Amino acid sequence: MAPPDYLSTLPPAEPPASPFDPSATPSDDSCPFCLIASKYPPFDPTKPPNQSARSLDPDATSPAPSAFVVLSTPLLVAFLDILPLSTGHVLLCPRSHRPKLTDATPAESKALGYHLRILSSAVTRATGVGDWNIVQNNGAAAAQVVHHMHFHVIPRPELNVRNGGKGRERFTSTMFGRGAREELDEEEGAVLAGKIRAAIAELLLEEKPRL
Amino acid sequence: MAPPDYLSTLPPAEPPASPFDPSATPSDDSCPFCLIASKYPPFDPTKPPNQSARSLDPDATSPAPSAFVVLSTPLLVAFLDILPLSTGHVLLCPRSHRPKLTDATPAESKALGYHLRILSSAVTRATGVGDWNIVQNNGAAAAQVVHHMHFHVIPRPELNVRNGGKGRERFTSTMFGRGAREELDEEEGAVLAGKIRAAIAELLLEEKPRL
Repeated sequence: MAPPDYLSTLPPAEPPASPFDPSATPSDDSCPFCLIASKYPPFDPTKPPNQSARSLDPDATSPAPSAFVVLSTPLLVAFLDILPLSTGHVLLCPRSHRPKLTDATPAESKALGYHLRILSSAVTRATGVGDWNIVQNNGAAAAQVVHHMHFHVIPRPELNVRNGGKGRERFTSTMFGRGAREELDEEEGAVLAGKIRAAIAELLLEEKPRL
Repeated sequence: MAPPDYLSTLPPAEPPASPFDPSATPSDDSCPFCLIASKYPPFDPTKPPNQSARSLDPDATSPAPSAFVVLSTPLLVAFLDILPLSTGHVLLCPRSHRPKLTDATPAESKALGYHLRILSSAVTRATGVGDWNIVQNNGAAAAQVVHHMHFHVIPRPELNVRNGGKGRERFTSTMFGRGAREELDEEEGAVLAGKIRAAIAELLLEEKPRL
């Protein structure tokens, strides 16, 4: 667990159900993101474990796909998308099972906002790509696939320049659930996740005097 | 200004510059969202003004397009998109000029997360549409058009059912800057904004005992 000096700056944990949807349950056995949350305990984001640490074992979710966790707090978990739209595509979600954003607690929603900015900056540092999209889909009509709410952070290199204009089209058609996406390379994933964790630690330490 | 009981639950205001981009300025004369922020002072979201109130005059931004403000706090402003992708398409942004999400302060980023959830629930209540996307674009390669960071909240009615499958395609092609979007109808905008403000007030009062 993280030392109190960092965690005390975050909103406190809360009872699971929110007034928005009292039926929301804190964990769902069939949910892949609940599985990840259950396998990766919180760590101090200013002192992330080494890649070799048991708490970061990408096979901890076996036989489900490997998970490369970049942030794990009492309220939230973030990890690499296993079907990335670009290098550095990460997901950020509450640790507890919240189908839609409106099922999150007030404390979770504040923590999501805070860490979305930190994660964006960390991904930018780790990838060197300074433009990115944030997308969060709620419900089947909005192309939500995993019904445990999550924000996508998706770096946007200048695809038009690199591949003659096909990149942007591919992005818009695949972002909302259609088209092919390539699987994350496990070796690249391990290196990238380490860079993102290191960038998160740097950023939080830089920001600490201001909080 | 809002009474202290509601505002005291929000993160405090902070100096404008963040360690992420110390060059970020708090206001930009050429920015349409800075114009909106300057024309619409904060109001207590639990007791929103009537549509006829001077503080909500949609022509306050004249000669720029009318603005229909649904939320205005010391840190944030939310208003109807003037080129909506669907009924209830709203934007949420910091009051101060922040080009990208990483330029926002820690307090602003928490407030964005908190109000994104409230706004999502309010739009759902006001429109009766329970599925929606949240999108936030950073930089030209990510199709950011107004360089004052903003989250889109976009209701997603079952377009495929209603118009033979064209809706989803239109959405993905226009969300990232291409294709035609119809202008907001001013009369419908006024009614819709009133409904969203009323729903925000209801939700905040329902939630108050839990904060």
